[in-house]
Amino acid sequence: SSPRWLEFDRAYFQSYSHVGIHEEMIKDRVRTDTYRAAIMRHQHFIAGKVVMDVGCGTGILSIFCAQAGARRVYAVEASEIAVQANEVVKENDLSDKVIVLHGRVEDVDIEEKVDVIISEWMGYMLLYESMLASVIFARDKWLKPGGLILPSHATLYMAPVTDSERYRNSIDFWRDVYGIDMSAMLPLAKQCEFEEPVVDTISGENVLTWPFAVKYVDCYTVTAQELESITTKYRFTSMMQAPLHGFAFWFDVEFSGPPMLQLNNHLHFPLANSSSEFYAHGSSHRKKRVKSDEVIVLSTAPEDAPTHWQQTMLYFYEPIEVKQDQIIEGSVTLSQSKENLRFLNIHLEYSSGGRSFVKESVMR
Amino acid sequence: SSPRWLEFDRAYFQSYSHVGIHEEMIKDRVRTDTYRAAIMRHQHFIAGKVVMDVGCGTGILSIFCAQAGARRVYAVEASEIAVQANEVVKENDLSDKVIVLHGRVEDVDIEEKVDVIISEWMGYMLLYESMLASVIFARDKWLKPGGLILPSHATLYMAPVTDSERYRNSIDFWRDVYGIDMSAMLPLAKQCEFEEPVVDTISGENVLTWPFAVKYVDCYTVTAQELESITTKYRFTSMMQAPLHGFAFWFDVEFSGPPMLQLNNHLHFPLANSSSEFYAHGSSHRKKRVKSDEVIVLSTAPEDAPTHWQQTMLYFYEPIEVKQDQIIEGSVTLSQSKENLRFLNIHLEYSSGGRSFVKESVMR
Repeated sequence: SSPRWLEFDRAYFQSYSHVGIHEEMIKDRVRTDTYRAAIMRHQHFIAGKVVMDVGCGTGILSIFCAQAGARRVYAVEASEIAVQANEVVKENDLSDKVIVLHGRVEDVDIEEKVDVIISEWMGYMLLYESMLASVIFARDKWLKPGGLILPSHATLYMAPVTDSERYRNSIDFWRDVYGIDMSAMLPLAKQCEFEEPVVDTISGENVLTWPFAVKYVDCYTVTAQELESITTKYRFTSMMQAPLHGFAFWFDVEFSGPPMLQLNNHLHFPLANSSSEFYAHGSSHRKKRVKSDEVIVLSTAPEDAPTHWQQTMLYFYEPIEVKQDQIIEGSVTLSQSKENLRFLNIHLEYSSGGRSFVKESVMR
Repeated sequence: SSPRWLEFDRAYFQSYSHVGIHEEMIKDRVRTDTYRAAIMRHQHFIAGKVVMDVGCGTGILSIFCAQAGARRVYAVEASEIAVQANEVVKENDLSDKVIVLHGRVEDVDIEEKVDVIISEWMGYMLLYESMLASVIFARDKWLKPGGLILPSHATLYMAPVTDSERYRNSIDFWRDVYGIDMSAMLPLAKQCEFEEPVVDTISGENVLTWPFAVKYVDCYTVTAQELESITTKYRFTSMMQAPLHGFAFWFDVEFSGPPMLQLNNHLHFPLANSSSEFYAHGSSHRKKRVKSDEVIVLSTAPEDAPTHWQQTMLYFYEPIEVKQDQIIEGSVTLSQSKENLRFLNIHLEYSSGGRSFVKESVMR
């Protein structure tokens, strides 16, 4: 709600006025089916209640909530796509139930508190776009005590990765171009390809160890301040000998019931009975995934079905040869960019085999 | 060389300072192999001579020319990639032969005239980027009489296309989204998807008739003024019954010898003996491709191997159902945008089955 937000948000919300971005999100069936399943799973809670959809886009999640029996849905959308959302609602004869509010959630005014907040706020690396701050704002201002937030929890993971194919294709490629040695291109190629985070799909085979949970977010208690800068130390033990090319980041979100219905609510990691699919942790790692039917999880992990979020990689300019059981350790700091509050600064420190490095990058 | 060019060119040349665009062009083997083959085919002409490479990028074509025996190659490049081109030349011990000139060809000064001009100047729809104007400038200022230009000729084609799959995926998709009628999205979807030209790969099966040659360019005689605005009337007879979704544009360029060595030089269409692969023409159409081994051709046609240029489509908001033998006619005007001389304005008029339409678009 500061003038600085407004300035950056013009470009940000503009990007959501193009139809292609909504087509991509809706066609991401992992995303949309999981949200629909989560809404239907909480139908007993939603039926007859008031819902707020923060950043409703074309309105599809709001309509799912109406289909689940919501008495009223406030569908809040700051970008111009709100005009189409309103038309979609009208065409589906839901105008009495779904109220499209064209504006930022920080600015809209409604005449009642809500029982449920639903939002698809996750960006690349979970935190890119800083949209969770708007969900927190809506929660603090509009959610009734004991209300439901969907999703309820989110976890950002990181893991060391090997990706020789990418190095061959975009770096080593220059060593022999139609028989010509173009190695002079290497420094620029490394800078252009690897200076900033890379959004792409990797597979489970690229990952050298079990992932590490960089940040666990409880959407009921997280504060905007807590998200401004996140620092975590990590320590991995490589499970194989391979060239270490960088780190991959991904996330999952879970759709648990409101706190009072949860059997347990651990400070940093959900216990087995509040998470359907999680890494059981030894030390600070969640090492082994355990499945349960209790909680719905939307995962963007490399070993799961691909989504439009893919994974986000920070590649090194030079690979590090690691042996089996070699330690890879350091710290990562994710912070809102001062240049644009929607951007994400990533400060990465990493050491292995007695050498230490620092990598600074910005997700724009 | 006007201040207006300079203003637009800052952004234009900036786009060529990223390594990815050069990687894409070099990895386009149809493009790079054909240029190399054309250089080797004219080795007898190039050996011992002076070459100018207009827009040399990483310098690969200049090095091919040095390998073909050129006495000297002036490799002119306005973008920052010239720095890397110079390093590549040094690493390959070619600094005495290949002189990298970092600047616009309109601004560089050399101490001799050249025997050969080589350039890979073709943009989407052939004319996007308006780079041919720089080749014309270099020809008029630096090419000796009887010199060689590679490529020597270029032809822009158009043909009516059917593409139901694209309409299903990005337009009709909105009619049933997870069971919800989101037809209200249709006007915006059509605008976002089809207002501007679409660069994508289609196949020969999408094309409803033989193509029409919109513009034939003889690089030895074409003037910059002639390219500022090009208008052509066209007339197609659909070879099948199908929904007409728009028009596709593509081009080919040929690498003939210098004019004196050509047996014939027709004003608008090369004759069989000066073109290796062309559409024999009845009326204004080139209807049937004839192959010959005489001339090397780089084709971006949908029936040929795909290139990074793909094809460029102008899609209609509403398809037109055409019957077999139905006439599709109108005119197309391609002109430099006043907004930015690198952009291309496309004014398309089309009629079929008694209805007439106009579509204005800009390739930015």
